[in-house]
Amino acid sequence: MSGGEVKLVQYFMAKGKLSRSRFPIGIGDDMAEARIPKGNSVLITTDMLLDGTHFDTKKHSLEQIGYKSMAANLSDCAAMATIPLAAVVSVALPRNFGAANLKKLHKGILAATKKYNCPLIGGDMTSWNKPLAISVAMMSTVGKTKPVKRSTAKIGDLVCITGTLGGSLKGKHLTFEPRLKESLVIAKAGANSMMDLSDGLSTDLNHICRLSGKGAIIEADKIPISKNADGLNGALNDGEDFELLFTMPVKKFEILKKQWRFKTKITAVGKITKEKIVKIKMNDRKIINLKPGGYDHLS
Amino acid sequence: MSGGEVKLVQYFMAKGKLSRSRFPIGIGDDMAEARIPKGNSVLITTDMLLDGTHFDTKKHSLEQIGYKSMAANLSDCAAMATIPLAAVVSVALPRNFGAANLKKLHKGILAATKKYNCPLIGGDMTSWNKPLAISVAMMSTVGKTKPVKRSTAKIGDLVCITGTLGGSLKGKHLTFEPRLKESLVIAKAGANSMMDLSDGLSTDLNHICRLSGKGAIIEADKIPISKNADGLNGALNDGEDFELLFTMPVKKFEILKKQWRFKTKITAVGKITKEKIVKIKMNDRKIINLKPGGYDHLS
Repeated sequence: MSGGEVKLVQYFMAKGKLSRSRFPIGIGDDMAEARIPKGNSVLITTDMLLDGTHFDTKKHSLEQIGYKSMAANLSDCAAMATIPLAAVVSVALPRNFGAANLKKLHKGILAATKKYNCPLIGGDMTSWNKPLAISVAMMSTVGKTKPVKRSTAKIGDLVCITGTLGGSLKGKHLTFEPRLKESLVIAKAGANSMMDLSDGLSTDLNHICRLSGKGAIIEADKIPISKNADGLNGALNDGEDFELLFTMPVKKFEILKKQWRFKTKITAVGKITKEKIVKIKMNDRKIINLKPGGYDHLS
Repeated sequence: MSGGEVKLVQYFMAKGKLSRSRFPIGIGDDMAEARIPKGNSVLITTDMLLDGTHFDTKKHSLEQIGYKSMAANLSDCAAMATIPLAAVVSVALPRNFGAANLKKLHKGILAATKKYNCPLIGGDMTSWNKPLAISVAMMSTVGKTKPVKRSTAKIGDLVCITGTLGGSLKGKHLTFEPRLKESLVIAKAGANSMMDLSDGLSTDLNHICRLSGKGAIIEADKIPISKNADGLNGALNDGEDFELLFTMPVKKFEILKKQWRFKTKITAVGKITKEKIVKIKMNDRKIINLKPGGYDHLS
């Protein structure tokens, strides 16, 4: 770490003051220390965001990119109905990126840390003559309910989603609000399984069903299609919705709907079935298999 | 996540079986859950490793690269005298990297997880038409001593290091053994401050001194120069030694030396001083300022 880097780390420390009781060791040491406020368990997730794939430095501001990199991980905390604890961020900076740009990126990260009470407690910066890459790792703790997994959907559960789907790349993917508060209420109401929608409903519902050893049938005319989506196809297959996909018994969902006070709506779009296939009833009442429409990072 | 990716995740799950009691939720969900075996505190670090900067896919095997990415973070756990708990790894894969290569990378990661009892509990894979980038985030827990920080060196402390310094890029940087066991003994013996040497002694000793509000004087003829180093200059300024730099009172170091049973040697190379400057006494007895010789990722 050079003199310039030292000054930047000092800047980060000053901008993101940490509670000494929650974080006995913060930014600037080999590791940061976080106290676990409750229980004896910690959860962790990580996401890598790349220029040209998850954001575009030619079009998007560094503040937006910083915010998104945090929000994508916060959405994972929401997906399990857990409480964000703290984050670390490692960045690969293009050569000549410079301190001013790094401060802009940091500003976007900090906006998310403050909004969702999930401080930045450490990180790593390195450089190359390649585009910007940002990796966030985030820890969370268990709330009033157990973490809600993907693999525990039950036959007869309603398949439910928050918000509307599709067309996120027109803008929402940079500014979305992770469904942290909503997820705690959903978990308390008795969700059997949950995840966040990052690869599109067709792909992610197949995950829940595969991991739970179940199937599902959803109805095309029930799917809340975003006004930015290119119709049903977009709502089923577009990535980065960052809404919640959850399953729960019919009666519990009825109670949840009555007590629901959030602006974001919740919608039941189908049911979990015994037969291990995910199907969709189209608007013409034809039932077809719903295959994952997501992107393949290995092909 | 596509069908190919699903199969790979299943492969990772099978290859790195997790203890259910330590990790109630493992690979394959939105987050992984780790139990904190002791206390109510967790530490976290992260490192980003880049093709062409920290490794070279043209020269180094993917197994070596995977091992190094883990070992760099394990070295941070050692730097604070903490016990590795678990790691998550996010990767940016060059297009057409393919499953076979990812398995090789994973094999190297897994070798480190097994050797140092620090399981891989989650991750993220994404792709672009750019070189390989790997980010590891690692958690650790507090051992029998408090985490040893950088900022707590005391006047009169000996400045000590493990092993020999310099020339790591000739090979050691890929195969080094993080000083996890050594660091626990050093902390127990009463080290006041510690860090791992990643940017070279000249840079890293300046960190300890700046953060502790102290200075230091070291002696050139005491520095254990690696046979791979280009003399004193290499030992002072080469990066990626991944040895420990620690400070402790003279008497405690004498006791430590007597009880030392590791193959890796420990050497006192100087003392912490009141004057806030880091100096070196050269072989000709001239005393000069020792400025950080590390690399600047922002310039």
